[in-house]
Amino acid sequence: LINEQIDTFRAEFLEMHPYDQAKIFEEQPEDIRLIIYTYLSPEETAEVMEHVERDQVEELVAEMNPSYAANVLAEMSTDDAVDILNELDKNKVASFLTIMDKNSSDEIKALLHYEEKTAGSIMTNEFVVVQTKQTVKEAMRHLRKEAPEAETIYYIYVVDVEKRLVGVISLRDLIIAEGDWLISDVMSDRIVSVPVGEGQEDIAQMMRDYDFLALPVVDFQNHLLGIITVDDIMDVMEQEASDDYSKLAGVSDMDGRDENSFVSAKKRLPWLIILLFLGMFTASIIGRFEATLDQVAILAVFIPLIAGMAGNTGTQALAVAVRGIATGEINNSSISKILVREAGTGIITGISCGVLVTLIVYVWKGDVFLGLLVGISIMATLVVATIAGALVPIIMNHFKIDPAVASGPFITTINDIISILIYFGMATAFMHLLTS
Amino acid sequence: LINEQIDTFRAEFLEMHPYDQAKIFEEQPEDIRLIIYTYLSPEETAEVMEHVERDQVEELVAEMNPSYAANVLAEMSTDDAVDILNELDKNKVASFLTIMDKNSSDEIKALLHYEEKTAGSIMTNEFVVVQTKQTVKEAMRHLRKEAPEAETIYYIYVVDVEKRLVGVISLRDLIIAEGDWLISDVMSDRIVSVPVGEGQEDIAQMMRDYDFLALPVVDFQNHLLGIITVDDIMDVMEQEASDDYSKLAGVSDMDGRDENSFVSAKKRLPWLIILLFLGMFTASIIGRFEATLDQVAILAVFIPLIAGMAGNTGTQALAVAVRGIATGEINNSSISKILVREAGTGIITGISCGVLVTLIVYVWKGDVFLGLLVGISIMATLVVATIAGALVPIIMNHFKIDPAVASGPFITTINDIISILIYFGMATAFMHLLTS
Repeated sequence: LINEQIDTFRAEFLEMHPYDQAKIFEEQPEDIRLIIYTYLSPEETAEVMEHVERDQVEELVAEMNPSYAANVLAEMSTDDAVDILNELDKNKVASFLTIMDKNSSDEIKALLHYEEKTAGSIMTNEFVVVQTKQTVKEAMRHLRKEAPEAETIYYIYVVDVEKRLVGVISLRDLIIAEGDWLISDVMSDRIVSVPVGEGQEDIAQMMRDYDFLALPVVDFQNHLLGIITVDDIMDVMEQEASDDYSKLAGVSDMDGRDENSFVSAKKRLPWLIILLFLGMFTASIIGRFEATLDQVAILAVFIPLIAGMAGNTGTQALAVAVRGIATGEINNSSISKILVREAGTGIITGISCGVLVTLIVYVWKGDVFLGLLVGISIMATLVVATIAGALVPIIMNHFKIDPAVASGPFITTINDIISILIYFGMATAFMHLLTS
Repeated sequence: LINEQIDTFRAEFLEMHPYDQAKIFEEQPEDIRLIIYTYLSPEETAEVMEHVERDQVEELVAEMNPSYAANVLAEMSTDDAVDILNELDKNKVASFLTIMDKNSSDEIKALLHYEEKTAGSIMTNEFVVVQTKQTVKEAMRHLRKEAPEAETIYYIYVVDVEKRLVGVISLRDLIIAEGDWLISDVMSDRIVSVPVGEGQEDIAQMMRDYDFLALPVVDFQNHLLGIITVDDIMDVMEQEASDDYSKLAGVSDMDGRDENSFVSAKKRLPWLIILLFLGMFTASIIGRFEATLDQVAILAVFIPLIAGMAGNTGTQALAVAVRGIATGEINNSSISKILVREAGTGIITGISCGVLVTLIVYVWKGDVFLGLLVGISIMATLVVATIAGALVPIIMNHFKIDPAVASGPFITTINDIISILIYFGMATAFMHLLTS
């Protein structure tokens, strides 16, 4: 690559899709990238940067010469530029904004102050807007002019004289319409919009349900502030899915490609240490039953089985509840129904596993009371653990805490404690039957 | 609703977005829905059905009069109709296909035989195609004619005389182009397509990376067979995320809104019973150390702590590896790097937790050997469990098994066994120090 002439490089490079260009960029060492920058205009580099992984693009922007970087940021989609700037420190952002042309810096500034993970933070202000009183022909002319800059031209938004959103027209409908018709006659006023503070997860759900390619974002007076396009929503969906998945496993954040063991360990240790203390608490509970254990040491044999089953069934119920809340299937009106169902599920699985365990332990150890003790403990444990697994995320959601934070390891450890209490409590109560 | 006049109902209902119409449909009892069908044309009902939840639409189609149902299916997007028909039994499908008009049934038949979860099964054959030798003006005229039927008109695909895909042009570029230019001059031949057998998860990844609104599907000779649109891909992403999440929790399938306890229990019991037998195996291992336990009953106190920590760290490593494989960050070239990193992570977390546990147990029980035994067991356990958590999905992926199948509960139980062996193995070996 490095030995090629500029023209050959440009010819080949610019033939590629920006995503493939971005992959090439990510794989090159810094010195080669510095040469490539000199081959490409800020506009061309901007297109590449939009497809570079978020955690790497910061590094790339830092290595560019500042005025080149400012130009690249100015040429990017405003929403992507804002995402990058939000990761940089404030002084750097200020200096980039001073260098770039006023138009771009104004557009970027308008988007910089919105809260993370809300509509405001993922919207762009590069959209096409027309007035109700324009004709289809005028709108098409306006559209052709705006097309190179706009994030999407497939929806055109219609505003009144006070810039309030009153309608939408798809390009599909626009190109079928006659040129002299009025926009107000061809537009749809059945418009779905989101408030600027709406959470990104809800927006993703909405976009998926309604099959939109873009959604308009409005303030409380219905002024059109920006639009959110489907490509950004796909990134949101991927990110939310990854977040939920890692929380279920008790990892605060997924590891990137280039992270080392220390970074990974730093992400996992906080969880492990919390769980360690919970585990110590479990140990102290068993400690209280030391007298029981001393008399019937065989009880210890079934501790992992009972605690493990409690953890497994709790994690299942947890996952079902978290997904149900995320997809909106569990809402205030269906909570009691879900809890009744989970209780029923716990009873059915509890009885099935309890009977099975009783038989196995009886056959194995030849002790019917031990069999009954372990079997009944499993049964009671499964019922309680299933309900707990469903209840914890529902309660968290009620208090506006993201239920996905209730991770699998956390619910597992809680259920360990419950199961140990049931098992040893019963064992201590019926001790005389076991030691006979 | 039931008492309203047809006209009033139609005026209000048809004003709504099809998704909202679908919600209303889902909430009505059957007898009211049967009345609504008589108010709506098959075409209008078809639009509603495209937005009804997949598991409910089957039921709705069954309750319609067969010839009405056939017309509704014929009016739906071909890909959606095919999805529904794939859920019905073959005789019913055959009878629907016979009733509907030949055009629609031919289109549907062409899509019916593709394998589930491949490009073929999610594509539609309602797309707009033009020839290289047409002019922009001709193409626009063709587009206007096809628009009402086509799934998307925002990408127009270009084929040669042998119907091979040679280019693509976005509507954006088409409306900017001059009317007398040739398609071959304005189209892009930098075209990304997917083979008809490609898996849907990979297609979703591609669509997200490249920010496409649609992707063309081709056979091995590059003939254009269909297109996949972004709205279908969002459903795929949601479904895949839900699948991975439920597998991590050991639930074979998520519960729908209307399922009862028996259905839920049926989905969870197979996992629980497998885990029960694995738990029994763990119990039998502890059983082998009964002599040790009899002498030092306090050892039992730390079983849940050690087994729990092994499960937690294993689940973390598992989740990171499964996500890494899904996003392509873990591939053949990076496997050894990842395993070295995980081993390092295991050593760091192991030493941290091990030292902490040693101190706590020493302070609590006043026994330095017991402290060291539990601490060193935790350390060794965390190292082994972390590596196991990462290794299992990598090995599964190597043998072309979906690594997401390695659920959290499964890896937790495996790690229980490993941790018990380490703990009791060490305790038995150093017994003389503990009983002094």
